[in-house]
Amino acid sequence: MKQYRIVILLILSSFVGFAQTKTASIIEDFKPSVVNQPGQEYPKVNSQGYARFQISAPEAKSVVVSLGLGGAKGGTVLAKDQDGYWRGTTEGAMDEGFHYYHLTIDGGIFNDPGALNFYGSTRWESGIEIPAHDQDFYALKDVPHGNVQQILFPSKSTNTSRRAFVYTPPSYHKDKDKKYPVLYLQHGWGEDETAWSNQGRVNLIMDNLIAEGKIKPFIIVMTYGMTNEVKYGGLASFKIEPFQTVLVEELIPYIDSNFRTISNQANRAMAGLSMGGMETHSITVNKPDVFSHYALLSGGIYKPEEIEDKSKLKLIFISCGSRERPESVQSAVKTLKDAGVNAVSYISENTAHEFLTWRRSFKELAPLLFR
Amino acid sequence: MKQYRIVILLILSSFVGFAQTKTASIIEDFKPSVVNQPGQEYPKVNSQGYARFQISAPEAKSVVVSLGLGGAKGGTVLAKDQDGYWRGTTEGAMDEGFHYYHLTIDGGIFNDPGALNFYGSTRWESGIEIPAHDQDFYALKDVPHGNVQQILFPSKSTNTSRRAFVYTPPSYHKDKDKKYPVLYLQHGWGEDETAWSNQGRVNLIMDNLIAEGKIKPFIIVMTYGMTNEVKYGGLASFKIEPFQTVLVEELIPYIDSNFRTISNQANRAMAGLSMGGMETHSITVNKPDVFSHYALLSGGIYKPEEIEDKSKLKLIFISCGSRERPESVQSAVKTLKDAGVNAVSYISENTAHEFLTWRRSFKELAPLLFR
Repeated sequence: MKQYRIVILLILSSFVGFAQTKTASIIEDFKPSVVNQPGQEYPKVNSQGYARFQISAPEAKSVVVSLGLGGAKGGTVLAKDQDGYWRGTTEGAMDEGFHYYHLTIDGGIFNDPGALNFYGSTRWESGIEIPAHDQDFYALKDVPHGNVQQILFPSKSTNTSRRAFVYTPPSYHKDKDKKYPVLYLQHGWGEDETAWSNQGRVNLIMDNLIAEGKIKPFIIVMTYGMTNEVKYGGLASFKIEPFQTVLVEELIPYIDSNFRTISNQANRAMAGLSMGGMETHSITVNKPDVFSHYALLSGGIYKPEEIEDKSKLKLIFISCGSRERPESVQSAVKTLKDAGVNAVSYISENTAHEFLTWRRSFKELAPLLFR
Repeated sequence: MKQYRIVILLILSSFVGFAQTKTASIIEDFKPSVVNQPGQEYPKVNSQGYARFQISAPEAKSVVVSLGLGGAKGGTVLAKDQDGYWRGTTEGAMDEGFHYYHLTIDGGIFNDPGALNFYGSTRWESGIEIPAHDQDFYALKDVPHGNVQQILFPSKSTNTSRRAFVYTPPSYHKDKDKKYPVLYLQHGWGEDETAWSNQGRVNLIMDNLIAEGKIKPFIIVMTYGMTNEVKYGGLASFKIEPFQTVLVEELIPYIDSNFRTISNQANRAMAGLSMGGMETHSITVNKPDVFSHYALLSGGIYKPEEIEDKSKLKLIFISCGSRERPESVQSAVKTLKDAGVNAVSYISENTAHEFLTWRRSFKELAPLLFR
């Protein structure tokens, strides 16, 4: 009976983005989620991965949290206590890592006032962290920290000032003659240029890897990956060319003239998650003279016949979560290797199409770049 | 009768933070607020300064927006239409500029899903912009842009990595030998180190002033101004010494060793709004060898007897909105001038204890610094 239950849950998980395992008893060691708003006690998470919510709305008819079993109930249905607070706990343990969520209150969609917001699904959504057993690699530690710089760069092709964030390693401000390779790193659909820092904690992953001497320091540039007229609109109308123009003809020259970069193909990489992987795929294949290292994080695969000149390509990295389609990633990388391409695969254990997959993928990717 | 009405409103305004003028008819030229979430139509504002809201919550009993006349009604009470949307317009025109707000839905406090959030009142609140007649000075224009850098600096006194944002002028990345003066700029109570960039648009004000040749470029450093144990707690328990230690003994040395600063008293200024003004007041008086330019924006006054050595002091700038206590600012500056201090006052017309007052004050202050 128990086995049957787990099978059902795993099937569900491919839709809702996280598996749940119901255990006999819930351990009462709940602590505030680390991405709560300052001083907020709820939402809380326990050591098993359960999440508990508390919302004040004394006159409401119903409050539902979009996290939880999904399906028929649409999430975790909260119950009103006599003090006017709605409370409830997920029916099962959630996957480790970061999850987006929202509340449905009397039929309207709102954020949890206790949680910080993160841009996903084309809106600022509530976020929660289920502590991961390997969370140390993206923790804020007492090591030298790089900076994340907001830049506004001119874009003639779109007639706008566009925003990007630039991670510079801790050494950048110290040695004013040193030059660095650059990784262009794209977010997924519905997200924006804030995602890799806020949800991905990529600056902290870099700081930690650099402090441990595991990588060669490099600059990371993150910009918004859509240019279609309904700026934050659907994927259906998305064409790669306008964004490729922004990235290759406007942003890269701006970065190369405003930051101390090693501005050649051998020292320029592109990577992206989900939709950002699709963009990376198209642009690197279109522009083999611009990038030498390519990485797709839950964002498709390369085929050997797409690589016109293998001598220019230094690395292809392809990854996903074990709850996605790992066999497709692994077989694509085998095919690339058989064709003489330096390809590497990585599968994040027990994660789906979510940020812990991408944090871990980034940690595996970074040491392979610019060696 | 009409005069009587205006008197009442002005008295009210000193409590609710903005005056309202009810006009005979509302002009139907409403446009989305410029600080809406991407693609969101509501909230909208019209050319008279009215704001209109639309919230989906089909099963709710009541939806109230905290903006509006305040008092008995507690804001703008929305009414439910047959399509399940709650709609309503402020009873009067609001002050120009930025306002925080939230929704009360069935007795619970939530943000408007249409608006971006800004950290104020110790929480991320919805924000709205009523276009100001002088908004050009803080507009995003096609001029060279400086960067806003997130730094994480080590603080032994608080045993934390603390965050600050550093504005570097457009020229900073171009001429790698040039050094700059530094302004330390503090937020108000309930806000944090994001306020001056997000609500204050201080980076855009700087970019525009620099492009117009009106100021000598300088660096701005913005960090979180509280250190008490209940980190985001009350003002009552706030003591200046722990923050002074963070600022003077930890942050300033970090900035001076990681950025190209002119690291002497003559080229270091401190300014703050509201609670940040009180901090500026205390720290500049305690540390006359550290700062040479002092500015209080809606944050109190200096008395001549507090200035121990006038020869070290280059400037005192004191400002507030006309709906605050302008006479107190003006008389304090007169007293300082009579005592031989280089003091300047500024009053922002038709604004209260809100960000348009501080944007304008900053624009007046910046050209006076480091001349």
